[in-house]
Amino acid sequence: MYNTQAQVLYDFTAEPGNNELSVREGETITITNQNVGGGWIEAKNSRGEVGLVPEDYIEAQPFTSGGNAASLDLSLFDSHIPAPPSTAQTSNGNDPWAVFDSNASGGFSNNWAAQPEGTETGETSSSAWHSGGHGHPQAYQGPGAEDDEWDEEWDDVKSSGGYAESEAGEGGAIHRGGAHGSSMKIALNKFPGFSKSGPELYLLSKQPAKGTRLPVYGGEAGPVWAYPDYQLDCVVADPKKGTKMYGLKSYIEYQVTPTTTNKPVNHRYKHFDWLYERLLDKYGSAIPIPCLPDKQVTGRFEEEFIKMRMERLQGWMSRMCRHPVVSSSEVFQLFLSYKDEKDWKMGKRKAEKDETVGVMIFSTIEPEGLPDLDLIEVEQKCEQFNRFTRAMDDGVKDLLTVGNEHWKRCTGPLPKEYQRIGKAFQNLSSVFNSSGYEGEATLTDALTAAGKTYEDIAQMVAEQPKKDLHFLMETNNEYKGLLGCFPDTIGVHKAAIEKVKEADKLVATGKITTSEKITMSKRASTMSYALQAEMIHFHTNRIYDYNRVMQQYLEQQVKFYEMIAEKLRHAHSQFTTM
Amino acid sequence: MYNTQAQVLYDFTAEPGNNELSVREGETITITNQNVGGGWIEAKNSRGEVGLVPEDYIEAQPFTSGGNAASLDLSLFDSHIPAPPSTAQTSNGNDPWAVFDSNASGGFSNNWAAQPEGTETGETSSSAWHSGGHGHPQAYQGPGAEDDEWDEEWDDVKSSGGYAESEAGEGGAIHRGGAHGSSMKIALNKFPGFSKSGPELYLLSKQPAKGTRLPVYGGEAGPVWAYPDYQLDCVVADPKKGTKMYGLKSYIEYQVTPTTTNKPVNHRYKHFDWLYERLLDKYGSAIPIPCLPDKQVTGRFEEEFIKMRMERLQGWMSRMCRHPVVSSSEVFQLFLSYKDEKDWKMGKRKAEKDETVGVMIFSTIEPEGLPDLDLIEVEQKCEQFNRFTRAMDDGVKDLLTVGNEHWKRCTGPLPKEYQRIGKAFQNLSSVFNSSGYEGEATLTDALTAAGKTYEDIAQMVAEQPKKDLHFLMETNNEYKGLLGCFPDTIGVHKAAIEKVKEADKLVATGKITTSEKITMSKRASTMSYALQAEMIHFHTNRIYDYNRVMQQYLEQQVKFYEMIAEKLRHAHSQFTTM
Repeated sequence: MYNTQAQVLYDFTAEPGNNELSVREGETITITNQNVGGGWIEAKNSRGEVGLVPEDYIEAQPFTSGGNAASLDLSLFDSHIPAPPSTAQTSNGNDPWAVFDSNASGGFSNNWAAQPEGTETGETSSSAWHSGGHGHPQAYQGPGAEDDEWDEEWDDVKSSGGYAESEAGEGGAIHRGGAHGSSMKIALNKFPGFSKSGPELYLLSKQPAKGTRLPVYGGEAGPVWAYPDYQLDCVVADPKKGTKMYGLKSYIEYQVTPTTTNKPVNHRYKHFDWLYERLLDKYGSAIPIPCLPDKQVTGRFEEEFIKMRMERLQGWMSRMCRHPVVSSSEVFQLFLSYKDEKDWKMGKRKAEKDETVGVMIFSTIEPEGLPDLDLIEVEQKCEQFNRFTRAMDDGVKDLLTVGNEHWKRCTGPLPKEYQRIGKAFQNLSSVFNSSGYEGEATLTDALTAAGKTYEDIAQMVAEQPKKDLHFLMETNNEYKGLLGCFPDTIGVHKAAIEKVKEADKLVATGKITTSEKITMSKRASTMSYALQAEMIHFHTNRIYDYNRVMQQYLEQQVKFYEMIAEKLRHAHSQFTTM
Repeated sequence: MYNTQAQVLYDFTAEPGNNELSVREGETITITNQNVGGGWIEAKNSRGEVGLVPEDYIEAQPFTSGGNAASLDLSLFDSHIPAPPSTAQTSNGNDPWAVFDSNASGGFSNNWAAQPEGTETGETSSSAWHSGGHGHPQAYQGPGAEDDEWDEEWDDVKSSGGYAESEAGEGGAIHRGGAHGSSMKIALNKFPGFSKSGPELYLLSKQPAKGTRLPVYGGEAGPVWAYPDYQLDCVVADPKKGTKMYGLKSYIEYQVTPTTTNKPVNHRYKHFDWLYERLLDKYGSAIPIPCLPDKQVTGRFEEEFIKMRMERLQGWMSRMCRHPVVSSSEVFQLFLSYKDEKDWKMGKRKAEKDETVGVMIFSTIEPEGLPDLDLIEVEQKCEQFNRFTRAMDDGVKDLLTVGNEHWKRCTGPLPKEYQRIGKAFQNLSSVFNSSGYEGEATLTDALTAAGKTYEDIAQMVAEQPKKDLHFLMETNNEYKGLLGCFPDTIGVHKAAIEKVKEADKLVATGKITTSEKITMSKRASTMSYALQAEMIHFHTNRIYDYNRVMQQYLEQQVKFYEMIAEKLRHAHSQFTTM
């Protein structure tokens, strides 16, 4: 419980345009709204200025007067003291794990065992998932949902200097709770490989390749990555609430168990985010690294939120495991099977110092026994992939739009209508019951049963999307995320092609040698093989994924309609024409 | 084809407030809109006044100059010359069959064999029935639909002097085509038994009962009418377009075949209307005589309109056949099995001269071996029936409202959505097809098939209401019509009860004798037995009808969902996860 008065523990400088309030250590402020969410509270300073302040930067004054014991306690643990956002934004790489966890939103229980308001154990957690019930039609909670009430990672905000907004940007944005329902997005995603340098860094590089070599072979359908004999996978499960600083801060830890070792490791969301950053830095120029499920997830209740995030982290991890280059990388292996804290910390530092990032990843790619491609072929392939990924992006978005509409109808007006039909039958039944005429019990019972059947159907209709449409939407959301990476990836290739096209001019003006020009062309060919291998990887996965999700969808749809038919058959059997 | 100039054949006096134009025989007018419909055209007279004129009152001047041969021809057939509406309104009883048929609306073909615009033979007539297709959601065309474009009976309008608006009034109103989309309703229904006299005519009658006696027996569940051993029924079928006056006038004749004689007779809608008037006059005080389907029916095309009207005339006739009192009446038997024109005309005149109409019908009712009821019992029964019929009226209307909403959804937004889902799958399939990756034919074929399946489902959803909801709506519409008669019927009984309550005072003031008071009480008891017998008839029919229609509804619903499941099962089988 907060008192309305609070003491500021650390300096905080407001970001312009974000409704924030700058405060100084030791200042006393008045909390005007503690239910802002996202780790923020709204407060007023002594000059009457109102704005948002991170709730961890202040200490509410307990009702029982008393000094600020908590802040004294906190001061014993220097490493846990939150660095102000401005510092955190630049301290990336020192020790990201040391950045504190924000607490959950205002009205939110710290007690993990306690059920969130309105939910019950078991079934309800999933039935409330998409706002459950028929009363309130709810759109599919896919990307772009704006009401992210619960978010422990807002404090992970880093410099957005290197971020270029792309179609994938949606997933990479982070919401900060707004005091008045408006949420502010802060770009999180960054792509150093793009901002630091163009593809010429690789095309003209004189350095020997560093790091594991990535062979590309000639496969039946075209160039392919080297696939491992055993396909890695992992299980993300068992989310647990952990606490820090004597329970003042809480976070969720997920158990990640790779199928190789079967030895679980624990990771918090920010660890996944760190992994994502590393993979994006290292492979992003060659391989689309989809955004983390991140802030796509919303949920009315903590339990739903965690379940949904876990499900999407599982999807992301499985996709990464399926990628032969990503899954065999040192950083990914570290994430999945670090031995202990020390092992993890050492591996982490090593990964952060990796120099083979951005376009330099192409220096490790080695086409095996494949002839050099001429520029026309390289360009044609690139154009083809560009066309296809754009067309698929449109198709996927179209399906998502339609699916979202359908979700709304199935959870809103449709069950309401079946409910009304059910009620109308039951109403007529009770009127008939009042007729005073003997011998119509069979009819009134049957009519009541028919009415209840339509109420059951209403319930089934409302719950069905979670059983089928949900997975269709999830898969398409994943692909939307993946496809959103292609413009950047393909952009690197296009830029390389342009550079090679300029090579003659560069030779003529003495900027490069003829030998360097040949190298450039050869390297563009290598890049093309990488892109082709990646496309074949994409296609095979796509074919598998869509076959699987359509099977799953249709199977559930069949079950759904069969169950309705069965229920109606039973209702039908109760009527009789003498 | 009309020329814009037309000659007025007969005087016509406009009814105030109906946008009509008074015209005189011999006058020349200019047709300003010949597509008004309902047997009307819009015309302008020489003074520039514009208004509606019955199209049969004028003769268009053919392009090829020429005299007015048609009007000369017509003059040979005096009996076919239309009497002006003002005359027709008062000439009721002389020879209603002589009243001419109006033609159909402007853009309407006289050729019965010609297909109405937009329809095809067979399937289409039913698929277009409720405006077909998914493009245009269409409400269930029940009572109160306003766009009755095609109506051949507008000229049957009679005096509305005796008409008291009741809940049944909706069905008894007739639309006249309005020039500017507004339709004018003219009350058609009338109830002479009510307007002429109260129940005292019977309660204090000194005349001996005339006509067939109607016994009421004590049955298991209460007083019952005398039911025949063999239940009469009839088939209304084979609508044929007939013409009069050398093809200038056309009408539809239905074949009515009673199951007793199996000998068909022909009747036009106005014959049914005449029968309805006779039954209402004769039995309306004791037995709810539901309105004819009448102007409840709308249809975009003549064929649909006729089919719908026929279906509802069939329902009305079957209900009348099922009623032991109605079906055994002389007038009903005449309607079903007149031998020839002469037989029919004689019977018709006799029926119109029947004096046992209105409350006098109770004079023919004879409770057999049933004790006289005291006034309290009579009143209780009356109140009970009143409560029940009102409650059922509400229940039925509620179901109709819900059904109408459901109809709209099923023929509008829902199939549209399934179509969009189908299109999204097919769209994705064609994108996949452009991937350039070999070996995804199985997926793209399966996706296309799944998409087409959802388009099929869209079609099924849109057409389903005609297969099940339609009959549920029709039955409830019939009951709505029946229930709408009860307030009047019960009103007669309540008025009688009030009269009997006043009897003591009437005796005291010397207005009636003690013997007459006893007779009044006895007759109120007779009326109550009639009402009770009628309620038992109503209840048994209701129980049968609702059992039957619910069976039919649910059976079709089961088939519908099973068919969807089967289609989806087939679509499912085409996907494969290698």
